[in-house]
Amino acid sequence: MRKNYLLTPGPTPLPPQICEAMSRPIMHHRTPQFQAVLKEAIDGLKYIFQTKNDVFILASSGTGAMEAAVINLLSPGDIALIIQGGKFGERWTEICQSYGINCEVIDVKWGEAVKPKIIEERLKHSALNTQRPAPIKAVFSTLCETSTGVVNDIEAIGKIVRDTDAVLVVDAISGLGAIDLKTDAWFCDCVVSGSQKGLMLPPGLGFISVSQKAFKLIENAKSPRYYFDLRKAKKAFDKTDTPFTPAITLIIALNEALKMLKEDGLEKVFSRHRKLADATRSAIKALGLELFAPDASSNVVTAIGVPVNIDGEKLVKTMRDAYGVTIAGGQDELKGKVIRIAHMGFIEEFDIILVISCLEKVLYQMGYSFKLGSGVCAAEEVFLTA
Amino acid sequence: MRKNYLLTPGPTPLPPQICEAMSRPIMHHRTPQFQAVLKEAIDGLKYIFQTKNDVFILASSGTGAMEAAVINLLSPGDIALIIQGGKFGERWTEICQSYGINCEVIDVKWGEAVKPKIIEERLKHSALNTQRPAPIKAVFSTLCETSTGVVNDIEAIGKIVRDTDAVLVVDAISGLGAIDLKTDAWFCDCVVSGSQKGLMLPPGLGFISVSQKAFKLIENAKSPRYYFDLRKAKKAFDKTDTPFTPAITLIIALNEALKMLKEDGLEKVFSRHRKLADATRSAIKALGLELFAPDASSNVVTAIGVPVNIDGEKLVKTMRDAYGVTIAGGQDELKGKVIRIAHMGFIEEFDIILVISCLEKVLYQMGYSFKLGSGVCAAEEVFLTA
Repeated sequence: MRKNYLLTPGPTPLPPQICEAMSRPIMHHRTPQFQAVLKEAIDGLKYIFQTKNDVFILASSGTGAMEAAVINLLSPGDIALIIQGGKFGERWTEICQSYGINCEVIDVKWGEAVKPKIIEERLKHSALNTQRPAPIKAVFSTLCETSTGVVNDIEAIGKIVRDTDAVLVVDAISGLGAIDLKTDAWFCDCVVSGSQKGLMLPPGLGFISVSQKAFKLIENAKSPRYYFDLRKAKKAFDKTDTPFTPAITLIIALNEALKMLKEDGLEKVFSRHRKLADATRSAIKALGLELFAPDASSNVVTAIGVPVNIDGEKLVKTMRDAYGVTIAGGQDELKGKVIRIAHMGFIEEFDIILVISCLEKVLYQMGYSFKLGSGVCAAEEVFLTA
Repeated sequence: MRKNYLLTPGPTPLPPQICEAMSRPIMHHRTPQFQAVLKEAIDGLKYIFQTKNDVFILASSGTGAMEAAVINLLSPGDIALIIQGGKFGERWTEICQSYGINCEVIDVKWGEAVKPKIIEERLKHSALNTQRPAPIKAVFSTLCETSTGVVNDIEAIGKIVRDTDAVLVVDAISGLGAIDLKTDAWFCDCVVSGSQKGLMLPPGLGFISVSQKAFKLIENAKSPRYYFDLRKAKKAFDKTDTPFTPAITLIIALNEALKMLKEDGLEKVFSRHRKLADATRSAIKALGLELFAPDASSNVVTAIGVPVNIDGEKLVKTMRDAYGVTIAGGQDELKGKVIRIAHMGFIEEFDIILVISCLEKVLYQMGYSFKLGSGVCAAEEVFLTA
């Protein structure tokens, strides 16, 4: 009789329409019938990405799409500027280093957003740039850093990078379809995303958009590649095809998700996420808990500091195993120190009410001192006045 | 009111249990609940692979798993011996060349199986081996070459490679779970497969098994890699985990497929495929058509020469668009020259009857001269006496 609730930053819950779409009989991918599906998917993705650029669909998780960005844009020995400030910013560095890219890292304190000014300075005075002209070729950034809940100011970063020879690459795996990201208007050359977050799908699809500026790098990049080779992807794309067997059922389900998002319209979708995040933040404060990223907390996932004397890992485990409510704990250096409640994708106000209620219940049982019901009440107030 | 039938060599039709499994609410992957799913999947894969080796599950199509084999085993400049004889044998060469591997190619005529003796000779006298000892490090082979329907004698190849320092890599994307492949008993160091063939799933999962002999190469290989890095996969595997977000719904569905295959048992599964292939071959002969690979035709997919004066592409298109029966045409140099009927995965005798019936109907309409009903009759005879 257990009901299960999922409020994790990927995977996010699946709408029934999407579950249904995946259970349909499969079709072959080299047919006009599937071509029509693929065309609809690409058009829908362009709407969500807010771009006229090509958007490629990969059969991989989001990390595969991140790797595709690195190896298609850069050659061994090239210089990349990487904004770190959490586990997923660090992933850019790890991927680049695996391919012999020289990494200049802006190490932002976990829980803070990057100051765009610093990027501007680093682009002007590259530390690794002994032999000019050998400029930074690409800037790697993160829209929403899932490990800390921080959102970065991609609009401001885009304005800075646009005036240089470098391309701007944005990891929007967390955030796309939940918060605003104007690929074209903000001058994002490559935007990378995945299926299991704002797009309300299971994991298994990666996405990557490519600007004209980025395509020029792709033609000349020397990193070895085959499965993730975007030259192959582009050749197939121009015939509404894929270079290798695509993840057919996930692409069929993607079209259902895109239809849902289009029906609501991006503005309404973003405003729903804002409300959910506001209510969560308000509830957290009412419970006397602290936001981990008070100055840059995203509308995608809220990281919350675990009070002293409370075992953060046990808190997450009890919510999940005793009451069926799955949220996320901290990763790497934040293990046991934060909990993370996602409000991304197919989530609405009563999901927030129930997760706060469950959090209250378990905190109470663990001996944390607060006024029972105060978190839920604060969330209700936000939803009533919004 | 159109009913659709799929007899293509990937994707193959989905059993209803698998459709149902994919439509369940999703679970989070970093939980003991998903760990139990993953453990069951790995155990089941070991049964299908007939191995005690680790089997890694990748979120990618089969080509991703092929790339994983190449880049984890070899370094730039290493020598690989590649058995070509169709589109997918050639893919090994393409991947190796993308990563700077020196390729010694055994170019088998399309439609024929490789003679194991030739492999033995090439391993002894490597053409590229000017500076001994610099032996061939890996032999890349194909179990069933989907483009031609040919099955290779992996058992014989395994016996030859075992006595050398080289590892044997088998592309079993087509064939695994349909025809016999004894990974351990036949000394296959890496066996690569995908989800959308014998395993009756949608595309989106790649699999790769790794022997102790292969692990030694993996530790020393210098090819750059991140997403497909099997060192990362192994580290996670030992904790029943995955290095990146796995394709959760497909792995849940995989367990349903493995359960079905285990319930029948491999012997019964292989014997069903043998019967389906026998009936197909018998029907083809009765219709006066010719097998493309008469001496090495697999029990996985049957390639059939298109009669002169018949447009092979139009034949496939008419069967699909006018009657809902999807088979495959020829690829690359075989475009328009062969048709391919798959009898792999969730296919049983009446699927063969209907595809032969549809083939008869369209051949008749296209003016091909034969005795109507003779193909179906020949297939029925095989099924009755089997």
